Amino acid sequence: MQTEHAATTRLAQFLVESQCRDLSAEVQHEAKRTILNFVGAALGGCRDDAVELAMRALNPFFGPAHATVIGRSERADALSAAFLNAVSANVLEFDDTQLETVIHPAAPVVPAAFALAELRPVSGHDLMHAVVLGVEAECRIGKAVTPSHYRRGWHITSTCGVFGAAAAAGKLLGLDRQQMVWALGNAAAQSAGLIENLGSMAKSVSVGNAARNGLAAALLAQQGFTGAEQAIEGTYGFGRVMSEAVDFGMIGSALGDGWEISSNAYKPYPCGVVLFPVIDGCLELRERHSLAADRIAQITVRGHPLLRIRTDRRDAQTGREAKVSAQHSVAVAFLYGAAGLAQYTDACVAEPAVLDLRRRVRVEEDAAIPVETAFVTAETTDGQRLQIHVTEARGTMARPMSDAELEAKFLNLATHGAPAVDAQRLVGSIWSLEREQDVARIIKLAIPPVG
Amino acid sequence: MQTEHAATTRLAQFLVESQCRDLSAEVQHEAKRTILNFVGAALGGCRDDAVELAMRALNPFFGPAHATVIGRSERADALSAAFLNAVSANVLEFDDTQLETVIHPAAPVVPAAFALAELRPVSGHDLMHAVVLGVEAECRIGKAVTPSHYRRGWHITSTCGVFGAAAAAGKLLGLDRQQMVWALGNAAAQSAGLIENLGSMAKSVSVGNAARNGLAAALLAQQGFTGAEQAIEGTYGFGRVMSEAVDFGMIGSALGDGWEISSNAYKPYPCGVVLFPVIDGCLELRERHSLAADRIAQITVRGHPLLRIRTDRRDAQTGREAKVSAQHSVAVAFLYGAAGLAQYTDACVAEPAVLDLRRRVRVEEDAAIPVETAFVTAETTDGQRLQIHVTEARGTMARPMSDAELEAKFLNLATHGAPAVDAQRLVGSIWSLEREQDVARIIKLAIPPVG
Repeated sequence: MQTEHAATTRLAQFLVESQCRDLSAEVQHEAKRTILNFVGAALGGCRDDAVELAMRALNPFFGPAHATVIGRSERADALSAAFLNAVSANVLEFDDTQLETVIHPAAPVVPAAFALAELRPVSGHDLMHAVVLGVEAECRIGKAVTPSHYRRGWHITSTCGVFGAAAAAGKLLGLDRQQMVWALGNAAAQSAGLIENLGSMAKSVSVGNAARNGLAAALLAQQGFTGAEQAIEGTYGFGRVMSEAVDFGMIGSALGDGWEISSNAYKPYPCGVVLFPVIDGCLELRERHSLAADRIAQITVRGHPLLRIRTDRRDAQTGREAKVSAQHSVAVAFLYGAAGLAQYTDACVAEPAVLDLRRRVRVEEDAAIPVETAFVTAETTDGQRLQIHVTEARGTMARPMSDAELEAKFLNLATHGAPAVDAQRLVGSIWSLEREQDVARIIKLAIPPVG
Repeated sequence: MQTEHAATTRLAQFLVESQCRDLSAEVQHEAKRTILNFVGAALGGCRDDAVELAMRALNPFFGPAHATVIGRSERADALSAAFLNAVSANVLEFDDTQLETVIHPAAPVVPAAFALAELRPVSGHDLMHAVVLGVEAECRIGKAVTPSHYRRGWHITSTCGVFGAAAAAGKLLGLDRQQMVWALGNAAAQSAGLIENLGSMAKSVSVGNAARNGLAAALLAQQGFTGAEQAIEGTYGFGRVMSEAVDFGMIGSALGDGWEISSNAYKPYPCGVVLFPVIDGCLELRERHSLAADRIAQITVRGHPLLRIRTDRRDAQTGREAKVSAQHSVAVAFLYGAAGLAQYTDACVAEPAVLDLRRRVRVEEDAAIPVETAFVTAETTDGQRLQIHVTEARGTMARPMSDAELEAKFLNLATHGAPAVDAQRLVGSIWSLEREQDVARIIKLAIPPVG
């Protein structure tokens, strides 16, 4: 069986045969960090307009209220809860990232596993295992189509996330190899999401669907609902249709030798990950040179082409658009010495000082610059030229967020979006996931108490 | 406002401003033919395995049972019913086709409109209007990306159908121009469906999602859930990401001068539309020369490249795969003088005589041959060479199905899938749609009586 012609089958077989005990303590700990960061991000985002409006529009069609909508009192059927929790976790642009692919791994995968865990008892070990496998599937498929897939305009978190959700859900459902192949085929049939929608709420639809539809794909496959045998590598399959160049060997080779979740990174700023080195650089320049905004004549940020392609938006009108605007991010970093939730609100975007400064920001691209690094150059009104080269941005593998930083981020997010939830207790429960026999008990801690 | 930069807005504006009275009597009649053919196809397909298994897998998550599942006693929430009815209508490969794009227009569009018509009173006129507009949107967008989109491997009925469903639903919801733009943006975020899944049930997932997700896109937009302003024509929008060459002018030009539904065709055979001229040719050769299967040494079919790409499948194992197999279709046409529902069952696929004859069928492509025509050449065991050139296949615009043929097809399909439904009464109600003030009454006629 040649790798190239059997990516779907090989991946399915691995997912089916993988055992909990194959995961090292380090990998299990990273799974907990991923789940912790996911729940925190969902708590922070659960009151965002996108969630509120989706709830209002879709609530009339919800089925039996078996599943928790993180941070909210409403409950929903498992598919709808998976949708909403994925939206909440991703909407603030504060979730996790695999930097190589720019996939946000948790948002599609964890909600699919959570939803199933409220339909039948799932242990902490099995939950972590399913999440690790889901991340493995989406990130390997993502690597196989990187960089041409994202460059073409695909929102890779959505397009690859649906496979991850199907894999995680399929594992918890105990699918056999044939069923897992079908689950991946039904995921391929639903792979969608365009970069054009970044900055609008429609991005959230494709992220939510990745979780919902991946779960549905696994549920369908469990009933014998068939899919293509080569949905990923076939002539008209995911890889060739949705990318220019594909390395199918990336999907089915050396499975189990390492784990994609080990390269998961967690965001220190609630915005596009390509902006992190830029923000780090601005904050550092500001501090080092006590650089007030009125002394700045021009700021030039130079980075990987993705930085320009995704974030050269001087006319961002809303907090949502600002999250993918280099001009806005640079302006707030210099003006306020911060780039947190408060700096990506509609109100902040409308501030005259911000609007004024961002007009003086230019974005340049250089294909030779790695995506996790950037140059920031400030020219002052008195003719100085101050430059910094950020090579290791906060929140990258070289400078990862510590467990303590992740906890602080979690508490900050919970305060922002769901202050009534007992965030400390939730943090403790997630750190000791391996001792829980029924993780539904933990998930329910994310519901704010009544009254 | 240049056409190229405003396709999404121009289309949205047209959809919003269009009035019922803009439709001629001919266009209204074609809308009825489309709806009649849709309901018939759904009645025929409603007991297919794909529908049964989807029902079993997803039923536990259905919301309030406001909407009819055509031909079945179960009811579902509007979104789920839209999904299932689209699957039923398309699964037998017996629905309608716009031959230029190979889009099956009704399957995604009509279920979205039907589902809304069971949530609020909708008149027959408004239903027809919404269906005409939905077909207009999906087919214009489809034409803009034809032929490169389909050739790349996109299941165009699914990928463009989601726009049609959003347009039809958006019209019934009374969206304003901005909301309609957002509905199209949220549709773009959900455009999906791969040719690789043809021949498996996963094809049905993307067709069902087109209806469901288009409806959801309109419901979201109604609540103010935003989408990209240039979701179709933007740099990273539907057109450029999902095709090589796009004619955006096709979407927003001369809107209202003619109607796409006027070029809708209805299938005489329950299989891929590219096979129609081939089957016509086989039936005619068989009759003209009294050609028994054991006299055939070899049959060569020559047609448009799509014929080979989509249907050169000598190893079809199931009735479902046989629907896109030239070898199977040729074999049954010569063996039985027919290519109806009975010839595309698993049992028929397994018949030794069929297996034997299809080994003697060859498919050749010629880019100069239009897709609605084909050459069929039979070489006999005694050295004869019999050829026919079919230029006007049954069920094409040149030889359209008559109203009487459509009725006969409807009754045949109803007998196949939902024999307890009063098909004659349903036919009568659809032909007099313009007199109905609440089309939910008609839709409910498609529920089999209890007991």
